[in-house]
Order: sequence, then C-alpha cells, then structure tokens
Amino acid sequence: MFDDPHRTIAIERPSPEIDDGRFPIKREVGDVVQVEVDIFKEGHERLRAEVLVRPVGAPEWSAYPLELFDNDRWRAAFPVTSLGRWEYTFEAWVDRYGSWLDEVKKKIGAGEDIASELLEGEQLMRGAAERASAGDKKHIEAFLASFHSLRSAVERVEAASEGAWVKLMAKLEDRSRATRYDRVLEIVVDPVHARFSAWYEIFPRSQGTDPTRGATFREAALRIPEIRAMGFDVLYMPPIHPIGKTNRKGKNNARVGLPTDPGSPYAIGSEAGGHMAVEPSLGTLADFDAFVKTCENHGLRVALDFAIQCSPDHPYLKEHPEWFAKRPDGTIKYAENPPKKYEDIHHLHFETEAWHSLWEEMAKILRFWIGHGVRIFRVDNPHTKPLPFWKWLIDTIQREHPDVVFLAEAFTRPKMMRALAKVGFTQSYTYFTWRNEKQEIIDYLVELTQSEMKEYYRGNFFANTPDILPFFLQKGGRPAFCIRAVLAATLSSCYGIYNGFELCENRAIPGREEYLDSEKYEYKVWDWDRPGHIKPLITKLNQARHQHPALQEYDNLRFHAADSNDILVYSKATPKRDNVILAVVNLNPFEVRESLVHVNPWELGKGDNEPYGVRDLLSGQRWTWQGWTNYVRLDPRHQPAHLFVIE
Amino acid sequence: MFDDPHRTIAIERPSPEIDDGRFPIKREVGDVVQVEVDIFKEGHERLRAEVLVRPVGAPEWSAYPLELFDNDRWRAAFPVTSLGRWEYTFEAWVDRYGSWLDEVKKKIGAGEDIASELLEGEQLMRGAAERASAGDKKHIEAFLASFHSLRSAVERVEAASEGAWVKLMAKLEDRSRATRYDRVLEIVVDPVHARFSAWYEIFPRSQGTDPTRGATFREAALRIPEIRAMGFDVLYMPPIHPIGKTNRKGKNNARVGLPTDPGSPYAIGSEAGGHMAVEPSLGTLADFDAFVKTCENHGLRVALDFAIQCSPDHPYLKEHPEWFAKRPDGTIKYAENPPKKYEDIHHLHFETEAWHSLWEEMAKILRFWIGHGVRIFRVDNPHTKPLPFWKWLIDTIQREHPDVVFLAEAFTRPKMMRALAKVGFTQSYTYFTWRNEKQEIIDYLVELTQSEMKEYYRGNFFANTPDILPFFLQKGGRPAFCIRAVLAATLSSCYGIYNGFELCENRAIPGREEYLDSEKYEYKVWDWDRPGHIKPLITKLNQARHQHPALQEYDNLRFHAADSNDILVYSKATPKRDNVILAVVNLNPFEVRESLVHVNPWELGKGDNEPYGVRDLLSGQRWTWQGWTNYVRLDPRHQPAHLFVIE
Repeated sequence: MFDDPHRTIAIERPSPEIDDGRFPIKREVGDVVQVEVDIFKEGHERLRAEVLVRPVGAPEWSAYPLELFDNDRWRAAFPVTSLGRWEYTFEAWVDRYGSWLDEVKKKIGAGEDIASELLEGEQLMRGAAERASAGDKKHIEAFLASFHSLRSAVERVEAASEGAWVKLMAKLEDRSRATRYDRVLEIVVDPVHARFSAWYEIFPRSQGTDPTRGATFREAALRIPEIRAMGFDVLYMPPIHPIGKTNRKGKNNARVGLPTDPGSPYAIGSEAGGHMAVEPSLGTLADFDAFVKTCENHGLRVALDFAIQCSPDHPYLKEHPEWFAKRPDGTIKYAENPPKKYEDIHHLHFETEAWHSLWEEMAKILRFWIGHGVRIFRVDNPHTKPLPFWKWLIDTIQREHPDVVFLAEAFTRPKMMRALAKVGFTQSYTYFTWRNEKQEIIDYLVELTQSEMKEYYRGNFFANTPDILPFFLQKGGRPAFCIRAVLAATLSSCYGIYNGFELCENRAIPGREEYLDSEKYEYKVWDWDRPGHIKPLITKLNQARHQHPALQEYDNLRFHAADSNDILVYSKATPKRDNVILAVVNLNPFEVRESLVHVNPWELGKGDNEPYGVRDLLSGQRWTWQGWTNYVRLDPRHQPAHLFVIE
Repeated sequence: MFDDPHRTIAIERPSPEIDDGRFPIKREVGDVVQVEVDIFKEGHERLRAEVLVRPVGAPEWSAYPLELFDNDRWRAAFPVTSLGRWEYTFEAWVDRYGSWLDEVKKKIGAGEDIASELLEGEQLMRGAAERASAGDKKHIEAFLASFHSLRSAVERVEAASEGAWVKLMAKLEDRSRATRYDRVLEIVVDPVHARFSAWYEIFPRSQGTDPTRGATFREAALRIPEIRAMGFDVLYMPPIHPIGKTNRKGKNNARVGLPTDPGSPYAIGSEAGGHMAVEPSLGTLADFDAFVKTCENHGLRVALDFAIQCSPDHPYLKEHPEWFAKRPDGTIKYAENPPKKYEDIHHLHFETEAWHSLWEEMAKILRFWIGHGVRIFRVDNPHTKPLPFWKWLIDTIQREHPDVVFLAEAFTRPKMMRALAKVGFTQSYTYFTWRNEKQEIIDYLVELTQSEMKEYYRGNFFANTPDILPFFLQKGGRPAFCIRAVLAATLSSCYGIYNGFELCENRAIPGREEYLDSEKYEYKVWDWDRPGHIKPLITKLNQARHQHPALQEYDNLRFHAADSNDILVYSKATPKRDNVILAVVNLNPFEVRESLVHVNPWELGKGDNEPYGVRDLLSGQRWTWQGWTNYVRLDPRHQPAHLFVIE
C-alpha cells in the first residue's frame, strides 16, 4: 500500500471484510449489501468514490457511488441479484471540480478577487471536454461560451454550480490517477432458504408401522403431508446408503448386534454399494427419486447426510485401498476418539498420496445426488477433514450448482467451527443446544448475529439431534420442549428439530445427553399423535415464520430488558419496521414468572407514549401496551412464551 | 488460504498485526516482542508451532517456540536486538510423535492392547532416524534396540515418554508439510529515545539578550546547560534556514512587515540559500555544527524542523520551476487554507510530473542535515503531502540511518494522523493539548496506549507549541501550567514543551489559542528566571522520568478510580512491578479537591491489606497507604499533583 506515487488516497478497513478478504461474506439472492470504508487523502481536496461490483467472471464492473457520512467513513449499498460468487472493491479519486467550486465559493464569500481562480475553473472544464463524448463536448463548449458572456464573478460561480452541470463535470472527472483498494472482496450469494428454513429430521426406516422391519421410502413418503402441514421446509435424512454388516452395532450402540439389528446408517457401505447407492431395505434408487419428487410436490426440500466414512464392507476398501491408512501390522484402523471406539467405521485417509482421486471421488458423490434432485447436504463431522478439502469441494460444487447448500455438523472448538464457515459451509450447527440461561443466550446470540460472524456464519438452531438430547429437555419435560421450540424457531431464521421432539420424547441414557433406544441402532415405530405432543405449537411457530418477514432475517435480533432473570425478551423487525415481532419467553420450565419488561418503543416503530396493540401469534390473545415498561405473566405449563406481532 | 492440499493448519489473526501486515509495528531496540496467533487443524492431533524472526535481509530465521495457552491461541516472545527493520511469521506442523504418545497413554490407561500402536510408534522413530544427523541416528538405533528388549507395553511407553527422548523426537519431526502463515509481518526497531524523551523547543534567535536583533547559534548555545539541567533530552528548533524577504510577515502575523522584522522561519529560502543553508543572522553552518556539538556534549540531541515549503525567494523557484504548480495566469499560488493566507509561502507541487526529482531532493535535504549530526526531524504539516511520499522518504532514510527519528506534526482528522504513523513516522503529535477533563483524558489515553494504536503510534505530548496556547493555560494560569506539565510528563513517555511554558507565559490573541507577540514573527528576549516560573517542577518531573523506568514505558498506563470528577489517578509499572509510579492529579486549577481514591493494591504489587509507603517525588512527602481506598487532598496553588513512587 502506498507504493505507487500516484495512488495517494488511503482506502482502508472496509466492512464487511473477513480476514482481509481471505474469505467471502455470505448473502442471499435479492439482498442489498451495505458496505462502508475509510477513504481519505492528504490536503483538503474533495474526493469521490465508488464501490465496484460484479458477478465473478463478468467482464464489466457496476459502480455504486459511495457517500461520505462521518469521519472519513464512506458507505454505499448494492443489490446482489443472482446466485453464485460476486466480487467488489473500491475506487476513489480527487473531485477537482468540486474542490474548485468549494474554493471559489469561500473566496467569493470573503469578498476576494477570483479572476485567477475562474481561469483555473475554465482549465478544469476544458480538461473535461478532452475526456468527453462528442455530445458532451458540444455541451461544454456551449457552456463555456455562455460562461464567458457572464459579467460578474458571482454570476459565473453560480453558473458553474448549477446541478446538472456539476453532475456532468463529476462524470468527466479525470480518474487516471484514481486509487483502487488493494484487495478484491468476495460474496457468496446463496438461495434465500440458506438463511430462512425450518428443518425436520427423520430416519426414513422408522417412519412406518411395523416394528420388526424398517420402513421403505414409499412408506416414509406417507409422512410427508403431515411434516409439511407442520410448516417445515427441509426434510433431512441421515445416510440412506447400504449399511455394513461387519462389526455392526446393536441396540443402544452395543458392541455386537443381533442378526436382526439394522445397524447405524453412518456405517456406510456393503456389498450393495457405497455412497452412491441406496440401502436395499429402503427401496431402490427409483424409490428415492419418487420420494424426492413427492417432497417437492409438497414444497419440501430434501437434505441428505454427507458422511465421509466407510463400514468395513464398503467397496472402497477393496477398490481404493490407497485411500485408507494401513498400519504397520497390515490392518486398517477403525475410527476412534479414545476411549470411544467406532468399530463399524473406517475413516478415509486425507493425508494419502492419492488425495487428488479421493477429493474427486467426494465431488462425484455429491454430483450423483445432485443428479437425483438433492440440493442440500448436511455434512457429518467436517472438523475431522482438512480445511483445504472443504474449500475446494464446496467451491467446486457451487460453481457448477450455486444453489447447493452445505450445513456443517461440527460440534467442536469455536475457531474451527468459524473456520469451516469461512472456507465455505453455507450453514453451521451451533452451541445453541447448550445455551439455556438468560445471559448465556444473550451473549451467544449477540456473538452470532451482531459480531463479524453474522457475515459468514449462519447458525442453524437444532433443538435436538439424534446425538443430542439436552439435559434441559430431559429435566424440564413438555414445558422445556415448548420453550426450546420457541427459542429455536424465533432466535434464528434457520432452525430444525429431529423427529420425536414434537412428541416431547426425552428418555435418555442415564447421566448422558443421549437418547435411550436411539433410532441410530434400531427400527422404531412412533405414535405421531401420542398424548402431550406439541405439534400445534410447532405449526404456529412455522406459520408465524412464514407470515412474518421479520422472522426470516438472521441478523435483525435485538434483546430487551426484563426484571426477571428467567424472562428473555427480544425483537426482530424488518428494516422499515413495517413488521415487528416481539418475543417474551419464560426460560424456567417449572415456575410461573411475572416480570416487567422494558422495551424502547422506538425499536418497535412506536412513539414514546403511543399505545400499541400486541397480538400473541401463539395464543391469539391481544393486549394494548404503552411506554417503555409493560407487564407479563407466563406459566410454562400453559403458555411459556408470547410471540407478539406489533400492530 | 487453504489452497494447498498439504497445508491444512489454520494460522490466523496474529497479534500484533497492523492492517493485515500492510504496515509494520514499532518497537525499540532491546524490546521483547510478545506475539499471539490462532493455530488449529482438523481432527485431534497435537500441533507444534514457532514464530520465525530475523532482521530484514538476514539469510536465516531464528525460531522461538509458540506455546498453546487457551482456546487454540498460541503465544511467544522474542527480543529485537538491533536497529532497523525486522520481520516475523509463523509456522506450525503436526506433532505426530506427541499425538502418538497421547494415544498410547490413554489406551494403556483404559487397559487396552497396544501392540499395533507400539509398531506405529516404532515407525515414527524410524522415520525420525531418516531425517536425523549421524549422531542422532545412532542414538535412535540404540534406543530402538533397548526398546525392543523391554518386555511390557507399559515399560515401552515409559521409555518412549522420557523427556530428552521426546525432545529429540520433536526436533526430528517431519516438517515437510508444515503450514507457514501467508504474510510476513514487519517491525521497525527504533532507538530507545523514540519512545522515551523529553523535548524542549526554542527559536534560537530569541535566546539572546538584545531585543533589536536575533541571537546567534553561539549566543543560543549559552542556554544549553540550563536546558539540560532541567532534564530535557531533545532540543528542537523550528527552521534555521534563510528567511525570505518577499511578502515577509510582520509582528503578530501582520500582512506586511517592517524592514526590521525577522520574518517567520517557516518562510524558507532567500538569496542566502534554501533548505540546505543556515539563516545568516544565526551564523554559519560551522556555527550550527558547533552548536550541535555543544548539545551532544551536554547530552542533548538536536531536532530540526523539516518544513517542505518555500518563500517566494527560495532558489528552487528559479532552479526547479517544474516543482511548483503554475496557474493559468502564469503565477504560482501561495499557500492558503481559505480564508487563511500564507503570502510568504509557496507549496511544492507533489503532483508534478517531476515528482521523482522532487522526492530525491527531499531525501537529499535530510541526508545533508544527517551529515551535520542531526538524527531527529520534526516534520511540519505532513498531512498536506502524499502518503506514498512519506512511506518512501522515511523508509529510504531509515534504511541508510536506522537511528533517525521522524515526528509528525499533524493536527488533523484522526484517520490521517494514524495513517502517517502507519506509513512510517516514528512519533506523532496528538490531541493531548485539547484533552482537559477527566473522562476525555481517560478515553483518549486508553485509545492511544491500550488499543491497536500502541503498536505503531507513539504520541509525543506537547503541552504547548508556538502555534498552540491552549485556553486551559490561558485561563488557569500557573496552576494550569503545573497540572499540564505533570500530565504531559507522566501520561506519555514522550513529551515536550515550547520555551516560555516553564515561565507560565500565557498572553494570547484574544479569543484564540495563539500567542500574542509570537516568536514566529519577531525577536524576543526572555527573562528565564522571571517570578512565578515552574522550572523546579519541570526539573523534578524530568528527574523522576530518568530515575523511574516505569515512566519510560508508553503502553503501561492504567487508570484508577477516584470519587472526585476532578481527581485523575493513574499508574505506570515495570513488567515485574519492581518500579511502580502512582500519579494523582487535581485537574481543576482553581479549587482545592479532596477525594477518596480506589486502587487495586495488586496493581501496585501489594497484597489486599498490606500497608505500603507512597513517597511523593514532587514534594518529598511520604505517607502510608493501605487497602483499596485512600485519601488525598490537592490544592492546585501549592500542590496540584502527587507523583508517588510505591515503596
């Protein structure tokens, strides 16, 4: 920077910018991107500046003027109108004509002679004429003729200040010594459902009615209308591929299974095929295609699991031994995280010399399922594979199919979780599941939605997963499920539940956050209408999300004060505040809580003492609120939360 | 980043790092540089990492081990032992041997069979042998022989865990796939007085006794012993070059001067020469050399002004008309900042096509004075010349003379002030002069000494300048001068006064922060012992600065609480807290203030209820303090501040 004697303008600290432009920001198609940047130069001349924008690969930049707003900080906004990678940078130059106008106006104001300054202005105009089109040139010559005919300096300065003329001079400003920002920054523009969607997770084999065998895709498809009726947008399934037999696990992760046990779907691969095949007991590939089609017809997108691991029976072990790490004793190690052992799984060895064919094979798997209508992949344990691999894989696939969404299932240390999002994952799992207290929810959500993370990390708030049955749900029962449903569905624009959540299923392995009799290791038959279910609440939450655009945004979350330490208050509003949602949640699943809540009426689009209606989208009740402080009472057994729309 | 399949380790967000390494940090020779960086990788393997350091141009890196301390954050410290540019970067690699040890220890603990793991360990040892020197190889072979002779797995793991052996394995770790941070970061290592010095500014022509003529260097030299006796380290003089006659200003900046007026020294250049000549009334170049020598003999460094501007009589106007902007009417514009006019000055035109010869001439001027013993330049108005010019000029000069110090006299918008420091200025003027209230002092000093600015911006706290007589001093009189002297000398390790400050000279042009009868436009004769002077206080402050290393550091400032809004409390300590200074200042020059002050004893190196002595370096008084809260009473007429050393 500052190595070119003619590039004298400082262009610094743009926002957003992730790690100096090493990583792209993320937006959704149709978004307006707001940018800011410091721009300044020695001396006192006026500057002009633009943000230059284009889809990557487009031949021409589109320019949007930057506006100085404070303390050498400039800003602009531009739309991103198509999927895929975009890029932007900044350019600034001296506004010599504007600077000259400033000077002559000041001097005229001080009553000074400006004969020499008027000649300087004329020189600028003639310079502009040299850079002008034929039409503009004629215009300038005509202007100069009439300029000369004006008798007083005041009249000349007035003519030179006329709006359209100043605009023309600005257009023709000499930009041959403009300064360009020294980085080009990138934007990944994803489909809107990358930001806004409600996920529902099922094991298709457990969607049937016969406990002695797994359900097929055809049988599982019968569940689709009900899932959609609850308002979900994405139907996500753990691996649907053939399950290995060798070292197959039994019920509750027993080391040795019975011959009748179906095994964990994460033990991928058998003589029936590997990652590009369907487990025979689920049906055929054609059955899968039909299942996808039915989902589509109901407005549900299908998300598949992408789990890079192999059962001992996976064809890769024979066909590509070079992708596995052989031990000195000739064996291949099974997966483990001492003292945990996964005898039914081998990891692929990413440090293999054959990394290139391995990477290409992984892309091939994704392309295969994309060919079968899948556009969303939930990626299992991405934090155990190299970051360069993910960067390459996601970029490669999204260049071909910019609508493909990748959800990172990493529950690991915070910096690795962020790094996976930076290198390309569209969405990410979060620590939401373990944030239950008021202050820890506020702290974490502020980090996710108000810090730099909001630019590249979209937290998908799963309330439970097949691997995580939080203690809060185990202890708190039905009220706890209601509380967590409201939080998940309204704190983030992306959330999900794993089936059984709506039934308040919470039988756990004692002392652990794991399901007892987990579907991962056995067939299950669920009673989808069993007493105590909370499907009406889930349905209302998803309806509210679809009807209220404020709930479809990610980074518009604001917290408000409440006297009770169990009462969490937050709002989401559209930019123009024409849709404002105010949530009040009792975080305590056991106790009634009353509290004063304190909300700045301005944040709801209301005047200081203006009465306003609050209508609870969950109960249908309506109150009139006024001023900064109002009262709530929430009984977790009947109504743990208000989800108010401000009227 | 992450574009190489084999460089899988994330190395992110090092600290310090200015604008992603676009600009160097600054340190002083002998400093120990503390660095931190995020380092992590997929999976669960152990990592090792180093910071690599060298003077720019040195063939080999020195390596210092980084230590993981928290949440994937690593740190190290290294010394910078010579002047000039240094560079550093980071490298990390997988600690396969350490990871293997972790694994086998866990498995042994769980009572598992580790026969296969022991073979893996042996493979690692054999791999190390391949990379080893002949001596180490022999050592490894001997180890393996005895390893094999051990009967139990436990014994083998014990042998493999032995300290010196683990160290050898670490040394021989395979680093062929190590990841290097993608930037090399720079450090400018300056002399210690870049951080720690007290400046005293004089117009040499006003150091004499005859009001009808200017003093010569020989006469001015008579003042040197007294200046040094007050404890100053740097003697700074505004331009000493021939002063132009054309449009010479009169007293108090009168548009037209009398023939007897000496003119402003900033109107540089006459028939007697330009920037490489001495104003004849001051004497000859030989007289200047002798003056510098005398200063040196007294332990004072000379700082010269570097003001890039020309009187209408400067030889450059005839010799290098290409360096000036000619107007359409054939004239050369004089300097102005409407409505202010500087008819006695022309600016050089940095946008000239002849920029290259102009830049080289500027370097020539600096080299000339460096040749005459000057190593410190105070640069006038750098914010009106291009940033690329300063970057080039300072870098060029410091490559030849890494001990040269540049002080930026920019009073302009904050981002430009920072940018000048980033592109190379060693020290910078600040807004200190206009920070008088308690909270604004705290806010500004925290910004300077605790934010990222501390890495590259050394604020030199001038309490006054020939151009700035702050209202606070005008109104507050002698107590105000005492208060500001204490603040300047103890808040920053670098400070300065312009002569007359010690005499509490505060006659101003009404309504302005400018001196009446300024030395800039006339000869002055001062009575250096006039009643009311505060030379004893200044001398004590400078003594305290020299005797107490805590006051010689810049970024070790900490503020403490006091009940009174007029009482400012702060401390400075050496890293080991073996020297701790606690300052308590009454900021109100008119009123006695009593207050409780609240200082965490731990920050002073004391236990919670441990009594400790506080000795006032200004008054010599001594008290015993104890606990968090103690009492002070400060009468601004007699004792506006305590400067305690903690005993």
